[in-house]
Amino acid sequence: MIEKTIGRIRAIDEKIMAQAQERLDNLTKPRGSLGRLEEFAKKVAGITRNLKPSFGRKVIFTMAGDHGVACEGVSLFPQEVTCQMVANFISGGAGINVLARHVGAEVIVVDMGIAKQLTAHSSKLIGFKDKKINYGTKNMAKGPAMTRKEAIRSIEAGIEVFEEEFNKQAIDIVGTGDMGIANTTASSAIATVITGRPCQELTGLGTGLNDDQLKLKVKIIEQALKLNKPDPEDPIDILSKVGGYEIGGICGIILAAASKSIPVAMDGFISSAGALIACKLAPKAKDYIFAAHMSREKGHKAVLEHMGLKPILDLEMRLGEGTGAAVAIGVIEAGVKIYNEMATFKEAKVSTQKKQ
Amino acid sequence: MIEKTIGRIRAIDEKIMAQAQERLDNLTKPRGSLGRLEEFAKKVAGITRNLKPSFGRKVIFTMAGDHGVACEGVSLFPQEVTCQMVANFISGGAGINVLARHVGAEVIVVDMGIAKQLTAHSSKLIGFKDKKINYGTKNMAKGPAMTRKEAIRSIEAGIEVFEEEFNKQAIDIVGTGDMGIANTTASSAIATVITGRPCQELTGLGTGLNDDQLKLKVKIIEQALKLNKPDPEDPIDILSKVGGYEIGGICGIILAAASKSIPVAMDGFISSAGALIACKLAPKAKDYIFAAHMSREKGHKAVLEHMGLKPILDLEMRLGEGTGAAVAIGVIEAGVKIYNEMATFKEAKVSTQKKQ
Repeated sequence: MIEKTIGRIRAIDEKIMAQAQERLDNLTKPRGSLGRLEEFAKKVAGITRNLKPSFGRKVIFTMAGDHGVACEGVSLFPQEVTCQMVANFISGGAGINVLARHVGAEVIVVDMGIAKQLTAHSSKLIGFKDKKINYGTKNMAKGPAMTRKEAIRSIEAGIEVFEEEFNKQAIDIVGTGDMGIANTTASSAIATVITGRPCQELTGLGTGLNDDQLKLKVKIIEQALKLNKPDPEDPIDILSKVGGYEIGGICGIILAAASKSIPVAMDGFISSAGALIACKLAPKAKDYIFAAHMSREKGHKAVLEHMGLKPILDLEMRLGEGTGAAVAIGVIEAGVKIYNEMATFKEAKVSTQKKQ
Repeated sequence: MIEKTIGRIRAIDEKIMAQAQERLDNLTKPRGSLGRLEEFAKKVAGITRNLKPSFGRKVIFTMAGDHGVACEGVSLFPQEVTCQMVANFISGGAGINVLARHVGAEVIVVDMGIAKQLTAHSSKLIGFKDKKINYGTKNMAKGPAMTRKEAIRSIEAGIEVFEEEFNKQAIDIVGTGDMGIANTTASSAIATVITGRPCQELTGLGTGLNDDQLKLKVKIIEQALKLNKPDPEDPIDILSKVGGYEIGGICGIILAAASKSIPVAMDGFISSAGALIACKLAPKAKDYIFAAHMSREKGHKAVLEHMGLKPILDLEMRLGEGTGAAVAIGVIEAGVKIYNEMATFKEAKVSTQKKQ
């Protein structure tokens, strides 16, 4: 299933991007004066292979999972918060709900492997999907976080989630998001293996650790890497040994979206860990990704540099859930609307610039 | 009238900001994890002196005026474009129209002094105001751009424009914008006088000059400053000698909004020249301003540093019209909604962080 999805990912359409650029240059503004808004419109045209793209349906997938490594004291919040926050997502009171509503996006919450069982009531609500692989990963400081089979299953579940929604009704842009106590720890571990940079450079304060707690977090990650020896050239191995179910799910969402020519607004640090796995599996997927924002989480900058992606926003956010993706979708859509709705010089009877 | 408006500008409400911070800290997210979105909500609360602020009515004022100095070859576009673009604003096909619609804002276009007379038809349309002071300023390279009386009148007209709209229906946030061929030249001149930095550092490519044209532009500004000797301590003198009618209008909008406790999303370089004049007249006005974005126009960074304002967006935009303000209003509103709509830990029954 993963192979099949990857096989369907094409290079984005350079020819359509050139045509989009031509239209952008004829709109009533000095050339290039809308800066990155123009870049976003052009990229969406190239990704969707469509000279008239629009954002009719926007969906943010918030993937939730628990992490065995939480018991090592790497997070300020107790593990039960993952499940409580999922309930908060379902009832619409979390940051992601507010920001998704603001930009006209739906939120789909996915239980990829939280440690508790949600109530039967919650699990039947619209906007929630149960893809639980297990009741949290195992403690990566003591052994692999999950089996190889579970790692594959988590990516497949992400692909399924996307395809189920897409088959219901076409989607025009996807945002990724995460929830999982201790998942910056797993993300830093993945980033350390894939970028090859020192663990310390890629490990940050998460929900707000102090200096001693941060030192402990780095130590735990280093221990997990030493013990499990993930193979840097095998993304499934990395995901299984030091990853998380929601991170595999995010990887699956990205691969599935790219395979259907749909742009992805990648949220912050955890989403970028999922994207690192996705792009290691399918390098072409990278061109389908918009880096929504520069997270305040320490390792994010290095990961974006490694991927060659320039963030859209820099608002010092570090909440996850897809909150950065939501705000960025509003900005990307601004670019798409510029492209679609502005008058050309000819239409508006405005003089063009003097010959230089 | 200007004195009266300035007299009504109060310090923003620190007490309400502290209460807003308390609410932000109780919302279901790690403290401070929504970064600058939280800062925006808190600032809006402090400005509006309201613990439940919301953006019901958003208005962008796009102030248009012509510049005599255009005849010196400081812009790529002919002067007639100012009037043609105003017609484009009125018919809804310009960048500002698209972006204002995207964030649910109205656009009010104001003729502050364009060189032509608009058709009777245009001038009767909703969303247009005629405050024409003169048919363009005079060439500042040969003498003062306008009389002192006109400079005062341009600020008063900005105040009137805001108050007329505000009295019709309350406004919750204002964006400033500009249109005027050659108005980066006037703005660089103002910025040079007020910041005290070298003209060359504050003068950029405008709509897209080449190196030789840029050198000419700097020479013209230096000539205008040498000839007119604007008094750095007298903002009206600066505006009259090297400013523009639309820049005075923007200054008036800012003063009027601050006097009514309404936040201002300041667009790019030209708007910041208007803001420099406003803050020189009324230093307290500064706290009412959100710097919408970092314009690509060279001098903007130095002006923002001088004002002590950190831009919300950095999207390499340089169009003016209020386009950066429009996009930023969407982001500021995201912060306000977070503040209003997110559940608290108590409401959502989510555990708070462990004691450190």
